[in-house]
Amino acid sequence: MTRPAPDEPHTPTRTEHDLLGEREVPTDAYWGIHTLRAVENFPITGRVIGQDPHLVRALVDVKQAATLANLELGVLDAERADAIVAACREIADGALHEQFVVDVVQGGAGTSTNMNANEVVANRALELLGHARGDYAHCHPNTHVNASQSTNDVYPTAVNIATRRWIMALCAELERLRDAFAAKAAEFRDVVKMGRTQLQDAVPMTLGQEFATYSVMLTEDLERLRESADLLLEVNLGATAVGTGLNAPVGYADLAVRHLAQITGYDLVSSPDLVEATQDVGQFVHLSGVLKRVAVKLSKVCNDLRLLSSGPRAGLGEIKLPPVQAGSSIMPGKVNPVIPEVVNQVAFQIVGNDVSISMAAEAGQLQLNAFEPVIAQRLSEGARNLTHAVAVLTDRCVTGITTDPALLRARVENSIGLATALNPRIGYEAATRIATEAALTGASVADLVLAAGLLGREELEELLKPENLTAQKIQTSPTTQETSR
Amino acid sequence: MTRPAPDEPHTPTRTEHDLLGEREVPTDAYWGIHTLRAVENFPITGRVIGQDPHLVRALVDVKQAATLANLELGVLDAERADAIVAACREIADGALHEQFVVDVVQGGAGTSTNMNANEVVANRALELLGHARGDYAHCHPNTHVNASQSTNDVYPTAVNIATRRWIMALCAELERLRDAFAAKAAEFRDVVKMGRTQLQDAVPMTLGQEFATYSVMLTEDLERLRESADLLLEVNLGATAVGTGLNAPVGYADLAVRHLAQITGYDLVSSPDLVEATQDVGQFVHLSGVLKRVAVKLSKVCNDLRLLSSGPRAGLGEIKLPPVQAGSSIMPGKVNPVIPEVVNQVAFQIVGNDVSISMAAEAGQLQLNAFEPVIAQRLSEGARNLTHAVAVLTDRCVTGITTDPALLRARVENSIGLATALNPRIGYEAATRIATEAALTGASVADLVLAAGLLGREELEELLKPENLTAQKIQTSPTTQETSR
Amino acid sequence: MTRPAPDEPHTPTRTEHDLLGEREVPTDAYWGIHTLRAVENFPITGRVIGQDPHLVRALVDVKQAATLANLELGVLDAERADAIVAACREIADGALHEQFVVDVVQGGAGTSTNMNANEVVANRALELLGHARGDYAHCHPNTHVNASQSTNDVYPTAVNIATRRWIMALCAELERLRDAFAAKAAEFRDVVKMGRTQLQDAVPMTLGQEFATYSVMLTEDLERLRESADLLLEVNLGATAVGTGLNAPVGYADLAVRHLAQITGYDLVSSPDLVEATQDVGQFVHLSGVLKRVAVKLSKVCNDLRLLSSGPRAGLGEIKLPPVQAGSSIMPGKVNPVIPEVVNQVAFQIVGNDVSISMAAEAGQLQLNAFEPVIAQRLSEGARNLTHAVAVLTDRCVTGITTDPALLRARVENSIGLATALNPRIGYEAATRIATEAALTGASVADLVLAAGLLGREELEELLKPENLTAQKIQTSPTTQETSR
Amino acid sequence: MTRPAPDEPHTPTRTEHDLLGEREVPTDAYWGIHTLRAVENFPITGRVIGQDPHLVRALVDVKQAATLANLELGVLDAERADAIVAACREIADGALHEQFVVDVVQGGAGTSTNMNANEVVANRALELLGHARGDYAHCHPNTHVNASQSTNDVYPTAVNIATRRWIMALCAELERLRDAFAAKAAEFRDVVKMGRTQLQDAVPMTLGQEFATYSVMLTEDLERLRESADLLLEVNLGATAVGTGLNAPVGYADLAVRHLAQITGYDLVSSPDLVEATQDVGQFVHLSGVLKRVAVKLSKVCNDLRLLSSGPRAGLGEIKLPPVQAGSSIMPGKVNPVIPEVVNQVAFQIVGNDVSISMAAEAGQLQLNAFEPVIAQRLSEGARNLTHAVAVLTDRCVTGITTDPALLRARVENSIGLATALNPRIGYEAATRIATEAALTGASVADLVLAAGLLGREELEELLKPENLTAQKIQTSPTTQETSR
Repeated sequence: MTRPAPDEPHTPTRTEHDLLGEREVPTDAYWGIHTLRAVENFPITGRVIGQDPHLVRALVDVKQAATLANLELGVLDAERADAIVAACREIADGALHEQFVVDVVQGGAGTSTNMNANEVVANRALELLGHARGDYAHCHPNTHVNASQSTNDVYPTAVNIATRRWIMALCAELERLRDAFAAKAAEFRDVVKMGRTQLQDAVPMTLGQEFATYSVMLTEDLERLRESADLLLEVNLGATAVGTGLNAPVGYADLAVRHLAQITGYDLVSSPDLVEATQDVGQFVHLSGVLKRVAVKLSKVCNDLRLLSSGPRAGLGEIKLPPVQAGSSIMPGKVNPVIPEVVNQVAFQIVGNDVSISMAAEAGQLQLNAFEPVIAQRLSEGARNLTHAVAVLTDRCVTGITTDPALLRARVENSIGLATALNPRIGYEAATRIATEAALTGASVADLVLAAGLLGREELEELLKPENLTAQKIQTSPTTQETSR
Repeated sequence: MTRPAPDEPHTPTRTEHDLLGEREVPTDAYWGIHTLRAVENFPITGRVIGQDPHLVRALVDVKQAATLANLELGVLDAERADAIVAACREIADGALHEQFVVDVVQGGAGTSTNMNANEVVANRALELLGHARGDYAHCHPNTHVNASQSTNDVYPTAVNIATRRWIMALCAELERLRDAFAAKAAEFRDVVKMGRTQLQDAVPMTLGQEFATYSVMLTEDLERLRESADLLLEVNLGATAVGTGLNAPVGYADLAVRHLAQITGYDLVSSPDLVEATQDVGQFVHLSGVLKRVAVKLSKVCNDLRLLSSGPRAGLGEIKLPPVQAGSSIMPGKVNPVIPEVVNQVAFQIVGNDVSISMAAEAGQLQLNAFEPVIAQRLSEGARNLTHAVAVLTDRCVTGITTDPALLRARVENSIGLATALNPRIGYEAATRIATEAALTGASVADLVLAAGLLGREELEELLKPENLTAQKIQTSPTTQETSR
Repeated sequence: MTRPAPDEPHTPTRTEHDLLGEREVPTDAYWGIHTLRAVENFPITGRVIGQDPHLVRALVDVKQAATLANLELGVLDAERADAIVAACREIADGALHEQFVVDVVQGGAGTSTNMNANEVVANRALELLGHARGDYAHCHPNTHVNASQSTNDVYPTAVNIATRRWIMALCAELERLRDAFAAKAAEFRDVVKMGRTQLQDAVPMTLGQEFATYSVMLTEDLERLRESADLLLEVNLGATAVGTGLNAPVGYADLAVRHLAQITGYDLVSSPDLVEATQDVGQFVHLSGVLKRVAVKLSKVCNDLRLLSSGPRAGLGEIKLPPVQAGSSIMPGKVNPVIPEVVNQVAFQIVGNDVSISMAAEAGQLQLNAFEPVIAQRLSEGARNLTHAVAVLTDRCVTGITTDPALLRARVENSIGLATALNPRIGYEAATRIATEAALTGASVADLVLAAGLLGREELEELLKPENLTAQKIQTSPTTQETSR
Repeated sequence: MTRPAPDEPHTPTRTEHDLLGEREVPTDAYWGIHTLRAVENFPITGRVIGQDPHLVRALVDVKQAATLANLELGVLDAERADAIVAACREIADGALHEQFVVDVVQGGAGTSTNMNANEVVANRALELLGHARGDYAHCHPNTHVNASQSTNDVYPTAVNIATRRWIMALCAELERLRDAFAAKAAEFRDVVKMGRTQLQDAVPMTLGQEFATYSVMLTEDLERLRESADLLLEVNLGATAVGTGLNAPVGYADLAVRHLAQITGYDLVSSPDLVEATQDVGQFVHLSGVLKRVAVKLSKVCNDLRLLSSGPRAGLGEIKLPPVQAGSSIMPGKVNPVIPEVVNQVAFQIVGNDVSISMAAEAGQLQLNAFEPVIAQRLSEGARNLTHAVAVLTDRCVTGITTDPALLRARVENSIGLATALNPRIGYEAATRIATEAALTGASVADLVLAAGLLGREELEELLKPENLTAQKIQTSPTTQETSR
C-alpha cells in the first residue's frame, strides 16, 4: 500500500492547490491534494478504502455512469468522457486500487473517498489523454470527473452497490452451509435421540430433525437477507448536494441511474424523493438488523454444535466434529470446537456493529448523514468476516460431523421423557406420578407403568416406539380427521 | 391487581397439589397452584401479564382454537369444550385479566404464563359447569384446557399474535404522524430556506421539501414494519413439546390454526417445519430490528425538530414548536421541545431493547428458546411506548409547527452556498475563489461575481432565483434531454 | 394511583395558571397545573415516578436540604421553611407518594418531576400553614419550594441519591448470594470432578473450586459496584440552571449539600466544577457499565448452573438444582432451571439498558443532558430487577444445590484429561500419543501408560491421585523453590 | 506479511507433525504446523496478530518470564533457557513480527496465538542454538517454550499487558486534549455568551466556562480509565489449564509473575484465586465499559463543537474550527467539521464494541472463556482508533479554535434569558410575565422591566451585568453566610 509521504527528501513532487493553499504531492501519485489532506486528517484505523475492492469498483462504476450521462447531456465532450470512462474501466478491472489511500473511517461524509476517486480517475484520464498528472486544466477532478455530482449522491450510491456485493457473497456461502446441513439431516434421518428443552431431557426426536432445523432456519434467513439487499437497489444518484439536483442537468438522474444499472448488472432505480434519499440511511440500518438476525441464529446453531459435541467422555457426546487442529498447548490429545467458536465471535462483532450503525444513523442531522463512512465500514466488515466464517464452518466442520446412533437410542430408551407419551392414555396426573417415581428410584418408565397395571405390555410397546414418538403427524386433508385416535 | 397472599390469616383457601406437593390457594382465586409457585418464584419487575391485554386475549384465543380442534377430533367432549370456549370468550372480552398475576419476566420459557391461563380458564369453566373452583376432575388445567398443547407451541403462538396487535396499533399512529408531516410539507411548500449538510450551510431548498422528507421516511418505515409483522402470521401451534407434535392427534395442527385464524381475523399459517419453528425466534429478532430502524429514524427527525426550533434568539429559530408546558422551574418564559425529547428517549429504549432481544435469541439452546418471555416483554414495551410517544408527537407538536418565511429567505439571499449554483457556468475553481472571498470579507456572493465580471447581472439573477435552485429536475422522458443546458 | 381526570363532570376543581394560561385541577389534588400538563404530555409507559419510592424520597430530601439552606441564608422565613420541611418529612416517611403522577419517561430534563415535587410539597405545606391548596401566595411551588434551585441541579442530585439507594439494596443481595456460593464451596470442597475448557474435558478439579469461583467473582464485583456507587456522592446542588449558580445566594451550594448529607446519611460533596457537573452524566454511564459487568458475569454463572444440572439422564447431571415448580404443561415430572433462567433474562435487559443509557448520555447537548429521565428509569429498573432476581437465585436455587460425588469421581478416573499430568514426566509428544490412542480405543490412560512401559505403576498412581491433580501449588516463600520437583 | 503458502510449487519445505498428522511447512518459516493449521482454519478478518505490536511483545514477555522461572526451578536447563530468552528479547525489540500470522479473530481461546508464539520462539531459539528450524528435539514449542504454561494462563496474561499498553497510550493523548481544552478555557475566560439547555437559550455564562467543562470531564475520565487499567495488573500466570496449576512446579506462579513484572515494568500481582481468574474476563468488560464512557463523552463534546461552529451564516457560529480540508466536491468554499465527525464515528464503534465484548464475556462457559480473542481484538481496536482520533482532535481542531466575543455578548444582551436573574427580586410569576411579553413583542427584557416600574435602572443594570450573571458563587467558609444577600 503506498501511503503518502510527500515530505520525504528526494521524492519528486508536483504542486497542487485547494481552498486552503498549496501542497506538494509525489509526482507518481494518482491521488492529489484532497487525498493528501484526508490522509493526514484521518490516520485512524490503518485500513484504507483500497482494501475494499467492492467499494473501489462501485466508486468508479458510479463515475463511469455519471460521465456517460454527462456526455449525452452535453456536459462533457467526447474526448474527456472517453478518457474518464477508460480510466474507470481499468480501475474496475483491478488497477490502481493501491491509490485509494484514505482511511475507511473518516470525517466528511465520504467527501474524502469521493475526492480520492475523482483524483485517481482524473490523473489516469490525463495520462490516457497524453497529459501529465496534475495538469487538471485538461481533466479536472471536480469540474469534469465529478461533473453533475456531489459526494452526497455519489458516495451513498457507491456504498449501496458495494454493500450489495458483500451481501451477495455472503448469501452464496450461506447457501452452501444450508445445503451441508440438509445433507446431514438426510444422513441422520433415522437416528433417534432425546430432544431437550431448557437443557432438560424432553421427548424423543431424530438427529435428522435436529439438523434439518438448521437448514430450514438458513433458508428463511437467506430470504430475509436478499429482501434487505434489494432495498439497496434504490439509489439517489442525481440528488447532488441535498437532493434538489442543483447543478445536474434536467434528465441527468434518470440517465445516470440507467447507465449504472447496465454497468453493475443490478436493477437500480432512482429514489422517488431525492431529498429524503440523500439524508436517509434506513436501508443500512435495516440490512444491519437482518445481518444481525442471521448472525445470532448462526451463533445459536454453533452453540448447539459445541454443546452436542461436548466430551469426549464427560459431556453429551452426541455428535463428533471433525478435528482441525490440536486443541491445547498443554493438554495432549485435546480437540476443541474451534470452528464454531470463531463463528460465535464474528456474530458477537455483528451484534455490536449493529449498535454502532444504529447510533450513526440516529446521529444524522438535517439534509445529510455525516457518519455513513462508519456505517459502510462496519457493514462491509461484518459481511466479509461472516462470509469467511461461514465458509470454514461448512467445509471444516459441518460436512465432517459424525454420530453414534446406538448411544443415542439407548438414552431414549432409558428416558423419563417417555412418560409424556402416556398422557393421552393415563392422563397428566398419573403420568406425573410415574415420572416422579422414575426420577427418584432410577427405574424405567415402562417397568413402572407395567408394575402399576396402567397399560398392557403390547399397548405400551406400541406407544413407546421411537418411530411413533418422533413422527410429525401434521395433515392437511380434512378426511384424515375421522381416523385420528 | 389481586396478588397471591395465601398465607394471610383468615383468607379461606382450597388445597391444590402438583409434583412438588400440596399448597393452599385462596378459594376465590381463579389461578391455582402452578400460578402460585410462579408468583413466588418470579417477583422480578412488579408488572404482570394481566397488564398486557393483547397477550391475555391472545392466550385465550389460542386456548379456544385448541379446544375447538380437540372437540372435532374427539379429544374433548362437547360439554367441557363448550365451557372452556365460553370461559375463553369472557376473558377475551375483558373479564378476569386481574387473575393473570405472573410477572412478565419469568423463567420457564412461558410455562407459568401458559399454566396461569390454563388454571384461570379451567376454574372459570368449572364455574360455568356448576362445579367448584379447584374441582379439576371435571375440567383439568393440563388434561383438558391444555389438551394436545404444550407451552412450547401455545406460548410462541400467543406471543406472535399479541405482538402483531401491538405493532398494528403502532402503525396506525405512524400513519397519522406521516399525514401530519405531509400536511406541513404542503403548508410550507413555498418557504425557501438554506439546506444544511454536516451542520454547515449548503444550498437552498424549501421547508416543504424538508418536511416532505419526514413523511416519505415514515411511508417507507411503515411498509417495512408491516412486512415484518407479517412474519408473525406463521405459527407453530400443534408442535407440542419439541415440534414433533407428540400427544397431538393427526390433523390437529391444521385444524387448530384454522380456528385460530378465524378467531383472530389474521391470515395465520402453520410453520412448514414445526421442529424449527419451535426453537426459532427469528421473527422477533427481525421485527425488533425493524422497530429499531423506525425508532432511530424518528429520533433523527426529533433531533432535527429540536435543532430547527432552537432559540428563540440565540439559535436557528427556523421553526417554532407549539408550547405545551412551562420549560423550567427557574427560568421564566422558557419553553422546551419536551415532546421530541420524549420520543428520543423511547427510541433509546428501543435500541437497547433490540440488544436484549438479540442476546435472548442467541442464548436459545437446542429445541427451545427459554428466554422468550423477556423477548415478548421488551418488544411489547417498545411498541407500546413508541405508539404513545408518536401520538403526542403528532397531536402536541407536529400539527402546531409554524415558521417565519421572510427570515428564512433572507438567510438564503445572504448565503455563501449560492456559489454552488455558479459551478456549471464559472467552474469549481473560480466558484471556490468567490466563496472564499465572501467568507473572509462578509460580502455577498452576487456582488463579488458582478465585481469580478464573471457573469452579467441578468444571468446571475436568473441563476440565483431560489425557485430555480430548489426545483428537483428529474425527468424520465428521453426527449427532454435535448433541451438540457 | 390517582391519575388526573380534571374534565370529569362533578369533580370539584380549583383554577391554576402558568405561562400557557389557566387550567382546572381537582381540588383534592396535591399536584398542580405543571403536573397536569406533564401528565397529558407524557402518557408513555404507564409507570409513574410515585412507584419509585427511592426517587420520591430523594426529591423531598433535596427540597428539605435546600429549604434549610434558604432559611439560614434568609431566602425563606421560618414559618414557610418549617412548613416545607414538615411536608418533606411526611413524604419521605411514605405519605403522598400517590400524588407523584408524572410518567417515569418524560421530556423536559426532569422539569416535570421537579415541578410535581414542588407542587405536592407546596400544597401540603399550605395545608400545614392553614391555607387552601392552590393558594400559592402563601407558599409558591417555584418561588418558595424551589427557591435557589433549578431542575438542573435538583433533579440530577435526587437521581444520584435514589440510584445509590437502589444499588446499595442490590449490593446487600449480592452479598447474600456470594455467601451462599461460599457455603457451597465449603460443602463441596472434596468433591473431585473433571474441569472443562471449551466444553471439552480438560483436567481434574474440585466442585468446591468451581463454586468458590463464583463467590470470588461476586466479591470483586461488589467492590467495583460500590466504587461506582461512590461516584454518585458528588452532587451539583447549587448549580441552578447551567452551573453558574445564578439566583442562588453565596454560600448556598455548600450549605445545601451539607444539609443533604445529614438528611440522607451519605457523604455527599459538591462537584468541584458545577458547570461541568450539570451537563455531565458520566457517573451514570460508568455505573451502568459496572452494573452490566455484574449482570453478564451472573448470567455466565447461571449458564453454568443450567449446564451442570442438565439431564436428568441425558445431560451432564453433575449437580441438582432444587425443584421450585413443575416444568411443563405437557411433560410429566419435568423440572426446569427456571430460577437461573430468570436471572439470565434480567441480565439481557441490563446489557440493553446500558446501550440506551450510553445513547442518552451521548445525546446530551451543551449545558444540559435532557435525557436523564430515561437514564434514571433504565438504571433503577435494572438495579431493582436484578436485586429481586438475585434474591430468588440465592434462596430458591443456590442454597439447595446438591451433587453426587461418586459419579463425578468416576468420570475423572475414566478421563483422557489425565494424560496432561504426564507431560512433565513423559513429554507432550508421548502424552499426545497416549491420549490419542485412549480416544480411539476407549482404553484408560493409565492402562495405556503401563502397557507402554512409560511409567511404573506406583509412580503413575501417585501422579494421577485426584488430590494431587487439583491442589493449587502457589507458594510465595522463596525458600520453597529449592524443593520443587 | 508472509502468509503461509506451503503448497506452492518449489517452495522448499520441512515436515512437521501434530496429533492430526504431518504437514509441509516452508523451510524459512519460523512458525510451524500449529500455526499453519490455524491460518487455514481462521481466514476471517485479514488482520493478523503480528499487526498488534503490543500483543506480540506481551506474548514474548510472558514467554521470557516463564522461562526464567523454569530455569530457576530446574524445569529448563540454562542453555535452552538462554536461547529462549534471547529469542524473546529479539522479538520484543521488534524482530520477526511478520511471523505472527494467525488472524486476530480465531477459535480456540487463544491457543493458536500461543502456539504461534511458541513456534516462532522455539525456531529462533533453535537457530541461536545452532540447530535447524523444526529440529524440535533440541527446543520444543510445547515441552520447552511452553513449559509450566497453558494457553489459558499465558494468553489472558499477555492480553492484560498488551491492553494496558494500548490504554496507557490513549491516556497520554487524552491528557494532551485535556490540556488543549484548558488552554482554550483560559483564552476564552472573559467571553460572555448565552448558555443553552435543551437547545433553548438559558442564562449567561462564559465561553471559558464552556471549554473548562471539557477539560474537567477529561480529567475525571482519565482517572476512571487509569483505575480500570489497573485491574489488568492482576494476572493468572501459573494457573495453567484451569487454574489448579497442574504441571507447574511449586513456586512457579509467584516467580514467573515477579519476572514478568520486572520485564514489563508493571506492578503485576498474582490473582488470589487462579481458578476464578482463569475463567473470568470481568476486567475486560469493566475496562470496555469505562472506555465506552470516555467515548460517549468525547462524542458529546464533538457534537457541541460541531453545533457551536455551525454556519457560517445560517448557524450558531459561536466558534470557528480551523479548516483542514475542502468540505465538498461540489460546494465551493464549504468547510466541514471533519475532525469532530471522525471522533464521533470512533465513539460509535466503541459503544458497539462494548456490546460485542459483553456478549463474549457472557458466553464464557465453566472453566474458561473461549471468546477472549474477540474481546482482545475489539478492545485494542477501540483503544487504538480512539488514540488516533484524539490526537487529530487536539492538533487539528481544538488548538485552532477561535471565537467572536462581540457577537456573543450582543446575543446575551438581547436575550430573554436575562429574566431569570430577576426572579429573586420580582418573583417567578412577574418574571414569567416579562419574559412572555419579550418573546411576543421582540422587546428587550430590560426595557420591559423599566417600563413596568418593577426595578430602578441602576439596580437593574447591576443585576444584569454579565460578569455577575456568570460568576460561580460557591463558598465553603461558614463565615460568609452572614453576608449573603
